[in-house]
Amino acid sequence: MKIIIDANGGDNAPNAVIEGVDLALNENSNLEITITGTKDVLSLIEGMTNKSRVVFEEATDVITNDDAPVDAVRKKPNSSLVKGLSLLKSSDEYSAFVSAGSTGALLAGAYMKVGRINGINRPALVSVLPTVDGGKVLFLDCGVNADCKSQNLVQFALMGKYYFTGVLGIDNPKVGLLNNGAESHKGNELTKETYELLSAEKSINFVGNIEARDILSGNADIVVSDGFSGNVAIKSMEGMASSIFYLLKKNIKSSGLKGKLGALLLKNTFKSLKSEMDYNRYGGAILLGIEKPIVKVHGASKAYSFAMAINQALKIVESDVVGKIKNAVNEGTETCL
Amino acid sequence: MKIIIDANGGDNAPNAVIEGVDLALNENSNLEITITGTKDVLSLIEGMTNKSRVVFEEATDVITNDDAPVDAVRKKPNSSLVKGLSLLKSSDEYSAFVSAGSTGALLAGAYMKVGRINGINRPALVSVLPTVDGGKVLFLDCGVNADCKSQNLVQFALMGKYYFTGVLGIDNPKVGLLNNGAESHKGNELTKETYELLSAEKSINFVGNIEARDILSGNADIVVSDGFSGNVAIKSMEGMASSIFYLLKKNIKSSGLKGKLGALLLKNTFKSLKSEMDYNRYGGAILLGIEKPIVKVHGASKAYSFAMAINQALKIVESDVVGKIKNAVNEGTETCL
Repeated sequence: MKIIIDANGGDNAPNAVIEGVDLALNENSNLEITITGTKDVLSLIEGMTNKSRVVFEEATDVITNDDAPVDAVRKKPNSSLVKGLSLLKSSDEYSAFVSAGSTGALLAGAYMKVGRINGINRPALVSVLPTVDGGKVLFLDCGVNADCKSQNLVQFALMGKYYFTGVLGIDNPKVGLLNNGAESHKGNELTKETYELLSAEKSINFVGNIEARDILSGNADIVVSDGFSGNVAIKSMEGMASSIFYLLKKNIKSSGLKGKLGALLLKNTFKSLKSEMDYNRYGGAILLGIEKPIVKVHGASKAYSFAMAINQALKIVESDVVGKIKNAVNEGTETCL
Repeated sequence: MKIIIDANGGDNAPNAVIEGVDLALNENSNLEITITGTKDVLSLIEGMTNKSRVVFEEATDVITNDDAPVDAVRKKPNSSLVKGLSLLKSSDEYSAFVSAGSTGALLAGAYMKVGRINGINRPALVSVLPTVDGGKVLFLDCGVNADCKSQNLVQFALMGKYYFTGVLGIDNPKVGLLNNGAESHKGNELTKETYELLSAEKSINFVGNIEARDILSGNADIVVSDGFSGNVAIKSMEGMASSIFYLLKKNIKSSGLKGKLGALLLKNTFKSLKSEMDYNRYGGAILLGIEKPIVKVHGASKAYSFAMAINQALKIVESDVVGKIKNAVNEGTETCL
C-alpha cells in the first residue's frame, strides 16, 4: 500500500516527518511511502533505514500558516501539500495522504484537488479523544463547517460510525449529540431538529444529548456537533488543560523545597497523566467525506505522532471506511444520506 | 439595603444559606436580609448572630431541579424561589435576589415575575471566571439564549461593560467575541455579523475575536457569545478540569508510596491551584437585563459562596448596574441598543 506524506508540514518538519516515516515503515512491511518535499529533504531520506520503500517527489514551494488557504492552494501547485493532494487524486495506486501543514490549506486543497464524496454535503474533521475510563471518543465536526444543517450532523454520525467500526473495531457505536442540556427538549434550533432526525435514523444507535462536560465521559462513542460548537468545545478543553498545567507549574515553582520534592516524586504520575490526556498518541484528525482518506497531524507533532498518523491512515484504508460511506450513499439505505 | 435570599435553593440548603447570610451580615453593617424559606428554616435563623437584621417570609413549597421551569413558576407561587422573586418585584425597598435553586426556574421566574429591562431583547447569564494571569474575565451568555441574533450579542457586550466597570472597577474593559479563529474573517454567520456590529460600536472597546482556548488568557476582560456556544465553552472547561483532577487522583492512588508522599508534599500546591480555578469564590452567575439584579449561586455552594454572592449583589446595587443599562437604553446613546 502506498501512502503519501507531506515532508514540509508542521513545526518540526522535515526531520520529525522523516523519522516518523521510518518508524511506520519499520512496523508495516507492506507499506510504501511517497514523500513530497523540498530538495533539502532528500539528504534526510538518504539516511533512512527503510529508504528502499520510499519514493521522493520534489516540491519547489511550501505553504505556511500565514498563507490564505484557498489562494495558497491555487497559487502554490508545486508546494509539498498541494503536490501531495494532486498525486493522491492522480492514481489509484495512492491510498491516503498525511500532512501536518496548514489546516485551512489542507481542507481547501482536499475539496479542490481530491473532491468530496458524491452525496456527502459536508466533509467533517474528526478528532479521536481519550475518555476518562481509558476508552476513546470520536468527536466531529471539529471545525470545518461553521454553519451546519441538521442533515449534515446526521451524515457526520454515519461517517463517524463507519470510522469507529472500521478503525476502532467496535460495532454499533453509541452516538450522542452535543447539546446544552441532557434532556430531550433542550437545544437550539439546529440541535432540536437534529435530535428528531437522529432518533428516526434506524442505522444509528442514538443515545441522546451529551453535555459538553461529558464529552470525555465515555457515555457516547461518537459525539456530533456543528463545526463552530465543535471548535469551541475542543479549544475550551485544550485551553483549560493548558491553564491547569501552567498554574500547577507556577505554584510548584513558588512552593519552595517541599513543593519541588513533591513534584519530583510525582514526576512519573504527571508524565502518565499527560500521556493519558494526549490525543496525538492516536494519530491525527481525520477528514471524512473526501474521496480518499486524509489525516491532519497536529502542527507541533514529533516523529512518534507522524508514525501513529500513518498507522491510522493504513487502518482507514484497510477497513475501507471511504468505500463503506460511498456504498451507503449510493445504495441510499440510510434514510438521511 | 435589603437583599432577598432563597433559603431552600442548592444542595446544601438551608444550612449553608443561613450560615452564608450570617457571614455577609457580619461584613456589611448596612445590609438587611429577607429570607424566603420553609418553616424549618426559622429555627436556623434563631441561631444567627445577626438575626436582628433578618426578616423571615414563610414559603410553603420548594422548586426542585426535576420540576419543569415554567410550570414550576406558575404552579408553585408559594415556593421559596417564586416568593422571593415576587417580593423583589413588589417594592422598591428590595434591591436584589440571590438563589442557588433551579437555574431554569430562576430564569423563567425572573422573566415572568420581575420582567426584563425595556429595550433589552435578551437577558443573559454572566459568569466571572479567573484568568491565568490572576485577573478576571466576564463571560456571557452562559446559557440562557440558545439561539441569538447579532444585536443580542452587542447588547451582551454593553451590559457586560456596565457590570465590569461598576462591580470590578475597571473603565473601558476590552471586549472580545468568542469565535472559531482569531482572524477577522473567521466565524459562522452570527459571529461574522456580530464582528461588524461590534467594530462599529464606538462605546465598546472591541479587541476582536477570541478563540475558546484563550477565554482564560486575560486578552479580553469580557467575552461575548451566544448562549449555546457559551454553554459548550463553560461546560467543556468544567469537564476538562474535572477529568484532569480525576485522572490525577487515580494516578496518585496507583503510584504507590512514592506518589502518595509526593501528593502529601504538594497538598498546599494542589489546594491553591483548586482555589485559583474556583470561580465560586467570586460569587455567582449574574442575570443581566432583568429589572432588578438577580444572582444565581452554584447548586453545590457552601456558606462562603453564598456570602460572596450576597456581597456581589450588594456591589451590583451600589454601582447601579441596572440603572446604567436602563439609561443607555432610554437615551439611545448606544448605537445598537
